[in-house]
Amino acid sequence: MNELRRDPITDRWVIISTERGKRPTDFKAVQQEHKGGFCPFDEGNEKYVPKEIYAIRDKNSKPNGKGWKLRVVPNKFPALRIEGDLGKRGVGMYDMMNGIGAHEVIIETPNHNETIDTMSLESVRNIVIAYRERILDLKKDSRMKYVLVFKNWGLLAGASLEHTHSQLIATPIVPKRIVEYLNGHKRYFDYRGRCIICDMVTQELSERTRFVDENKDFVVIEPFASRFPFETWIIPKNHQAHYEFENSSIYNSFADILRMTIKRLSIALNRAPYNFVLMNCSFDNKYNEYYHWHLEIIPRLTKIAGFEWGTGFYINPTLPEDAAKFLREVDM
Amino acid sequence: MNELRRDPITDRWVIISTERGKRPTDFKAVQQEHKGGFCPFDEGNEKYVPKEIYAIRDKNSKPNGKGWKLRVVPNKFPALRIEGDLGKRGVGMYDMMNGIGAHEVIIETPNHNETIDTMSLESVRNIVIAYRERILDLKKDSRMKYVLVFKNWGLLAGASLEHTHSQLIATPIVPKRIVEYLNGHKRYFDYRGRCIICDMVTQELSERTRFVDENKDFVVIEPFASRFPFETWIIPKNHQAHYEFENSSIYNSFADILRMTIKRLSIALNRAPYNFVLMNCSFDNKYNEYYHWHLEIIPRLTKIAGFEWGTGFYINPTLPEDAAKFLREVDM
Repeated sequence: MNELRRDPITDRWVIISTERGKRPTDFKAVQQEHKGGFCPFDEGNEKYVPKEIYAIRDKNSKPNGKGWKLRVVPNKFPALRIEGDLGKRGVGMYDMMNGIGAHEVIIETPNHNETIDTMSLESVRNIVIAYRERILDLKKDSRMKYVLVFKNWGLLAGASLEHTHSQLIATPIVPKRIVEYLNGHKRYFDYRGRCIICDMVTQELSERTRFVDENKDFVVIEPFASRFPFETWIIPKNHQAHYEFENSSIYNSFADILRMTIKRLSIALNRAPYNFVLMNCSFDNKYNEYYHWHLEIIPRLTKIAGFEWGTGFYINPTLPEDAAKFLREVDM
Repeated sequence: MNELRRDPITDRWVIISTERGKRPTDFKAVQQEHKGGFCPFDEGNEKYVPKEIYAIRDKNSKPNGKGWKLRVVPNKFPALRIEGDLGKRGVGMYDMMNGIGAHEVIIETPNHNETIDTMSLESVRNIVIAYRERILDLKKDSRMKYVLVFKNWGLLAGASLEHTHSQLIATPIVPKRIVEYLNGHKRYFDYRGRCIICDMVTQELSERTRFVDENKDFVVIEPFASRFPFETWIIPKNHQAHYEFENSSIYNSFADILRMTIKRLSIALNRAPYNFVLMNCSFDNKYNEYYHWHLEIIPRLTKIAGFEWGTGFYINPTLPEDAAKFLREVDM
């Protein structure tokens, strides 16, 4: 019989199919190829994108020229813009404000043919450090309430360019899903006096049925109420609400586990497209005691249809325990 | 400048792109064709699907044989099953229960080549009556808390079979998104003493910028904080929480406006795949005063990516006012 499992943070129930449990090989290859040709993110094409905000560069190189290892630039077609005021206003019963915010692109490497799973550890470290630096900088803008760091990889996951990159969007409102997470953490803390994710880490390391991998600072799991087949979370073992406040040694460790996990999924799922999102705390420090940041990776193997839109529930055809076992056994 | 608009019911903010507003012709054709061949939903193939639960048939025809106009059958691969008890239990910090519920398919017509926009009014009336009858029947099961009626049309919208059909899933928990809607309606009612959707109908009929169509009982609009280009809502003008409790004349009227709206979208968007979901009240009558049912139609024109998964926010590249104008001007 199928199972209904409750996400302990958001109160979202997921229907998990135990009957026709799909193995990785049951998902048809869905990778679409990008068209080749000119790439504005390649080294030497710096003039085709907006001016850099942050970069990791060779000592003698100049901003917006060659000789870089990673660059952060404004999105050329931003969803939100940094200039202006919020202009909050009503339209009859409705509420709106101007599209103020920031929308940046993290060009992860000058090398067009690299991806996170094939990069050097140092290159992945540059990425996770860039996330921190940009969050710290954007937090200084008092209009902003949140920075969402995310990555779309592969056409079907929404990446419009092939060259590996991440994005961030800073918003003047705390996003709905983050509010749900904050509330969920708080509800658990109020009831049990402990952090929900700390408890999750303890249970997962003890049960080990949804365990995928670990290093000294992080654990990788398939969450109990996974919404999607092979949904994978990377969680810091020690409590920390804010990604950007971790000790510097943690970023090395995070780069290591991120690279290995993307590689593991890539091998298991035949380079399926994926999204990842950094579920960081909102800027306010009042959540520090009970919020615990983590990264969610979502391989794009299934379609979202009417049931999911209508209910906010998901039907997941793969048991997380099966997915975890499969991922543990990947030949790395 | 882009706009941030707040969904008044759910508190979800949507980024609406006013700068590069996409017109219908900007969306590439995304319709994929189903493979042809044998169809288990065609008349004469009744034995290839589970036994019918409900049907609209010719007087002399027999159940599970030919001579029908509409049939409702259990889904052959149900997400939830009707037999068994809920078996609620904990797994350490997690909660789960058995996959109890109902998952039914409404085969809307015996004619393989019809769709809602090309059917007779009478055929569409059969569909909307079948929704009512199945909801009324499933409400008798005390284990059930909600019935979600939905339709996936087109491969990219998640329809695994081409033959036009709707589905319903009855769940032992009120789905997350319905809880959000119930809470949103309640919040507004507590503050203003009126139904939020009644107020919406009044404002939309007065402003007419997001107005698409109407008949005596229904209005069709593009919602103020549309998550998707050409997201379209059909709303009863008079207050009613429960779809299944409408006066019988209303179903004629609903069939009429549903057919015309699907036709309008089909012409405007070149038969783009779509989902629709009936946002009905949960079974409990305590919400009657402030909940107002409606139908949401979502054409599948854009991809959902990391930002949407991470935030629960959406970026909509088409201004609802532009979409409404375009739809009003469709040559029917």
